Parts: sequence; structure tokens; C-alpha cells
Amino acid sequence: MSKEQRAQVDAMLRQSRPDEGPRSVEAIRAGFEALMAPMTVPGSIRTAQTTLGTRPALRVEPDNGQRAGTILYFHGGGWVYGSPGSALSLTGNLVARTGLGAYSLDYRLAPEHPFPAAIEDTLSAYRALLDSGQDPSAIVFAGESAGGGLTVTTCLAARDAGLPLPAALVMFSPGLDAAHTGESMDTKEGIDPIITRKSVEHTGAMYVAGQDPYQPMLSPAVLADLTGFPPMLIQVGTNEVLLDDSTRMAARARAAGVDVILDITADVPHVFQAFTGVLDEADEALERAALFLSQRIRATGAAHTSAG
Amino acid sequence: MSKEQRAQVDAMLRQSRPDEGPRSVEAIRAGFEALMAPMTVPGSIRTAQTTLGTRPALRVEPDNGQRAGTILYFHGGGWVYGSPGSALSLTGNLVARTGLGAYSLDYRLAPEHPFPAAIEDTLSAYRALLDSGQDPSAIVFAGESAGGGLTVTTCLAARDAGLPLPAALVMFSPGLDAAHTGESMDTKEGIDPIITRKSVEHTGAMYVAGQDPYQPMLSPAVLADLTGFPPMLIQVGTNEVLLDDSTRMAARARAAGVDVILDITADVPHVFQAFTGVLDEADEALERAALFLSQRIRATGAAHTSAG
Repeated sequence: MSKEQRAQVDAMLRQSRPDEGPRSVEAIRAGFEALMAPMTVPGSIRTAQTTLGTRPALRVEPDNGQRAGTILYFHGGGWVYGSPGSALSLTGNLVARTGLGAYSLDYRLAPEHPFPAAIEDTLSAYRALLDSGQDPSAIVFAGESAGGGLTVTTCLAARDAGLPLPAALVMFSPGLDAAHTGESMDTKEGIDPIITRKSVEHTGAMYVAGQDPYQPMLSPAVLADLTGFPPMLIQVGTNEVLLDDSTRMAARARAAGVDVILDITADVPHVFQAFTGVLDEADEALERAALFLSQRIRATGAAHTSAG
Repeated sequence: MSKEQRAQVDAMLRQSRPDEGPRSVEAIRAGFEALMAPMTVPGSIRTAQTTLGTRPALRVEPDNGQRAGTILYFHGGGWVYGSPGSALSLTGNLVARTGLGAYSLDYRLAPEHPFPAAIEDTLSAYRALLDSGQDPSAIVFAGESAGGGLTVTTCLAARDAGLPLPAALVMFSPGLDAAHTGESMDTKEGIDPIITRKSVEHTGAMYVAGQDPYQPMLSPAVLADLTGFPPMLIQVGTNEVLLDDSTRMAARARAAGVDVILDITADVPHVFQAFTGVLDEADEALERAALFLSQRIRATGAAHTSAG
């Protein structure tokens, strides 16, 4: 527990929040890269540009002792901003703490490429891993915010395509409801130091682009059939308008007979794991995520991998 | 994942379930000790009989490299049966995996000693640890089933007594609702291979002994104010009539601003962690519990320890 650290991070984020006026997509993208640039990237990893499926990807590997298995990572940013670079603190920490290699995918963004472009790209990346001969029981999906949502919708798309499913999903503060129907959208407004209903509706509308948000690929926390899904770890803070995306996804997974860990930290903001080195809770949450991933990759030959 | 192992444990428990006729307290106690006797106790611990507060306790220590910090463990058994011996697999595994020493308390049982005798004993044990000079930020409560419930009610009692609170609570399939109002009491009837509404009501009535079950010390998942509580880890299986004791406690903790991990494993029975060595999920769950405990004990000088 570190009440002082939690308060410090909250105050810092409130200061960084941009003026409430409408901003251009370019300004949003540049502002997010600037916000994430100071986040700590472990020194014990190396990165390289590559491609995976139809898109560029950042390959992230541990300097020493790489284990068999792959993290397919999806960055956050409301399906409109963000990049493998903005998420490198998170991807790099998972790689450094597990010894697994990762691909962080540079999927297409809205508004230039609305739904379902992102999911086409993530599915193509997963298919490329399978086509290269990788065992699905040694592949895990992980992502933060919108990328957390993509772990679920990519898994839905893989099941629909008749592919075997990955070994696990890890989500940091996932966005799982494009209709924004969670109670926390209202109860956490103002408590959330950085995200507001207005801001998620602004970028969300670019991704949904006039399509019906009430479909499983856009609002999986409300509508998805999770039967046969691999184990999930969902980490979220209580100071988030998106909190109930996580609580509803966990309840849905439980009802579908899926192993699910709902890991809630009080009084921390959206994707608090990015504050590694500043906030003890960030390091501890990443340590728990790394153990979860290691347990799932270790358990090879898993029964659910034949679900597809 | 180990679907075969999960099915095997389920079948084994169904066979062990006694005939549905009423049994004497002595028969229930002997049957439970026989059920738990084959559970694997790690070889790397040593045990000694001692006393803690007003009651006997089993001291459990790692053979090598003990770290600072203490697990105060409360065994399960519906407040009517069970002992430090029946829980030794669980206590011993936590000790072996964390390096922490434990005291497993032989609290008084119903019907000879109904509510609140057990809580008087567990609070007395906690007070004895504090009186011996132990730092509350290095003490954690852990327990299974009824003992999981005692981690919460002992913490409530400590707060009422003006004592500082422990660093964390770990619950395996806790019993947290003496009124038995969870939906899973009905939806999991028959799916639960060993516990039925009839069986929990039978022993529950001995503990409640005609008192009002609608009070926080008997039904904390429904009524307790958890403000200021330390972080909790709740592990439970989906094949449990007691499942919703856990889900409601987690929701209550979240609403009270408490860090809480709700760790759900599908298709496993009540206190599946006892099947270490037989069920991979048992070992993995204990490994996660050990990491959680280590994180909480490591974080000394914690802010919440001044809550009392």
C-alpha cells in the first residue's frame, strides 16, 4: 500500500489532462505519445521493427534466457491513438518479468480505419504466428485499454474463424463496451483523473463510425459468448470510468465457466501499471501478471487449445 | 488447464459424500479428518504444538530460511468440525511457498461453543501476536471455508477493538453468509460435488444457535462495512454453492475502496487448493496466494496499518 504514491499519480494525471475543447486527431496522438514517453522501459530488453501478418510490429525480446512462448501485445489509445512505442513500458515489463518474447502490433487506427479494421489486423497477426508453426498453447494475448478490448475481440474472431484459441488473455483496464453502459461511466466521472465520458465517446465514435455498438465485437462485456475462452486476468483501478467494463467481463466469464481473475487496486487510475518505478502497485500488478502468464504458458498441451 | 484432473477430483468427492441422513457431530468430525488426512503436506516444514492467546495452536515453520512475518491461519469445517491438522496441507503449503511462519489456531467449535466463541478466540490470538511485539504490517490472516469467513470477522472485531489491522487477508472458498442468501446456494446445488444447502444449514444452525444471522459478524458478505480493510485475495471455484459468498464480498470490498483480487477457477470444488499434487490448479492457486502474501508482507510500514 502506498496512499501517498496513489495520490501523487492522481494529481500528476489531473494536471496533464488537456483542455476540454475538441482536439484534432493529430493533437490527441501527439499528446498521448508525450504522456507515455517518460514511462520506464526495462533496460534488459531489446527491440526490432518487423511485420506480423498484414501490419508492422515491434518485436520485444529479453536480453537473456528467452523462454518458449509469445506474447501478442495490443497497445491502447481508444482505437484512435497510441502505438507499440507508447505501450513499450508495459510490453517491455511483461517481457522482462516472464522471459517471453513479444510482438506489439501496429494495428490500423480510426478514424482513417474504423471498426473492424483493428480486429482484422490483430487476427491476421495471430494467424501469422500459427502459420509459422507456433503452438497456440504457448501464445498469450495482452493489452491495455482499447488493446485489452482487442484481446477479447481477437479471441472471438479466432473462434469464429475456426482457429485454436491462445493460452490466456491479460487485460490492463480494458475497454469492453462501445455503448458505454457501465454504471462507472457516471459514478466515476470526476473521480477518474484522466478519462471522461466525453473523451471516450469522442474517440469511440471514430472507431464505431455509425455502426451498431450493440454487437459482441464492439461491446463484448455486454454481449459476447465467452464459452471455451482461455483463462483471463483483468487488472483495473477503482478510479476509472471504465471499471465496470472489467467487472461485467469478469462476471460474464465466470458464468461461461472460464477461469478469471479480477484484480482490483483501489484509488489508482486507468492503466496504472504504466507507472512502474513510481507507484509500488504498478510493479506489484505487473509481477502478478507475469506469474499468471508463466503459469499459463507452462501448462502446455492445454485442453482449451483444441476449442477451435 | 486440466479438464481431466478437474473431472477426477469431482468424481472422487462425489463418492466420498456421506449418506444424506442426519449424522452426529462426532461422525461429521471424524469423517472430515479422514477426508483431509491424505492431502499432501510439504516435507519442508516443521510443526509444534503451542498456545496463542486463549487457545492451543499449531506452529508451522519452514525448515530453512524463515522470513519475518506471520500467517495467522484459521481452519475450515463449518465452525463445527476441522482442526489445525485437517488444514495442515493448506497452511503448510503457504508456509513452504512464502517462507513465512504460521500459527494455525484451534479455536472453539459449535455446537458446544456457538457464535461468537470462535471470533473471541481468533481475536485473542491476534491480540497475543500484537502483544508479543509483532508489527501488524507483517501479519496476515488466511483461512479456508469457515476459516476464510473468520479472516473477515476477526478483522472486523479487531477494528471494533481499536486494534491495528493486519496486512492482508487470504480466503480459500470462504463462508461469509450465515443467512445463506447467495444465488449460488440454489444454482450450484447438485453441481457442487460435496456441499449442499442442507449440509451448510445443518452445521450453520449449530454455530448461529438461534441468534440473528443478519449481522456483520455472521454475514459479512451481505452486511459488513469494510472501510479501511487491508488487501484481500479471494479464491473460489465455480462448482460451489458458496460461490456467491465470494463474489458478493469482492463487490463489497471494491465499493469500500479495498484492494481485492477475486480469483475464480472453473469446474473445481470447495477448497480445491487442498488437492495439491493431484490438481494442477491447486498448486497454481497456492503459488498465486504465496505471491500475494509476499507482496503484502514486503510492503511494510503500510498506510492501512494505522487504520485502527
